[in-house]
Amino acid sequence: MFRKIALIAILAGCSLTGAAVADEQADPNIAARQSYMDLLAYNLGVIGGMAQNRMPYDAEMAATAAANLHTLAMVDTRRMWADGTDNFDTEGTRALPAIWENPDDFVARFVTLQTATEAMMAAAGTDLASLQGAMGGLGGACGACHQAYREPQ
Amino acid sequence: MFRKIALIAILAGCSLTGAAVADEQADPNIAARQSYMDLLAYNLGVIGGMAQNRMPYDAEMAATAAANLHTLAMVDTRRMWADGTDNFDTEGTRALPAIWENPDDFVARFVTLQTATEAMMAAAGTDLASLQGAMGGLGGACGACHQAYREPQ
Repeated sequence: MFRKIALIAILAGCSLTGAAVADEQADPNIAARQSYMDLLAYNLGVIGGMAQNRMPYDAEMAATAAANLHTLAMVDTRRMWADGTDNFDTEGTRALPAIWENPDDFVARFVTLQTATEAMMAAAGTDLASLQGAMGGLGGACGACHQAYREPQ
Repeated sequence: MFRKIALIAILAGCSLTGAAVADEQADPNIAARQSYMDLLAYNLGVIGGMAQNRMPYDAEMAATAAANLHTLAMVDTRRMWADGTDNFDTEGTRALPAIWENPDDFVARFVTLQTATEAMMAAAGTDLASLQGAMGGLGGACGACHQAYREPQ
């Protein structure tokens, strides 16, 4: 599966290295939310890897990843979920129309994510058992939202 | 130019919609920092568009984009700049080896970005003139770092 890289030149002196993941009909909102999910995954990979003993526990690394997750959870993503960018109207997204049918609940999911990442931030740097103890809440926040609002693969 | 989408499955119940921009030899660190730059660009596009009168000034939209920029500037990106991921060692990145030769200065650039986004956050929601007044600092933070550490196109 190949996609064309969409290079987005923003401002004089501020054009970016960043290449948006995008379809031929590149929608910057879809690209942005996929970038956002990628950054969550990148940091969650550290926490999850340690929780599942696939990588050695490192308190500083865990704390940094958890802090990043919480920081990212504080980003206001509402503009990314623009009308007409669900998976019925657009290629290259698994975002279900249910998102747009339940806007209040969808926004509430991000509040749940903020709460879960805050708990992980408090736990991740303490020790492995604490990190593992906060994993259920964080994994649950991700999984529940995906189950409700993302097309299964 | 075509790139393969790298789908990163992270955790049971937490696999992601997100598709990382990546080369055939997908490096998740490079993908993550390109996602990060994409999110900066996505929010900077709003501020810059208003500053240059390419889109109408909207105080709430400007304030949200500025707050997002500041939040993103607080993300600790150090892990993304892993050894061996410069543009001499790896395809699909314009990150110059100078980054790894000047680690302290490189980190300081992010502090400059934090300061500039904080100033923008204070200004963007006030009025267009205030937003425009903070644009130099923000554009300068982006541009100076790109000039020092990013291969020209």
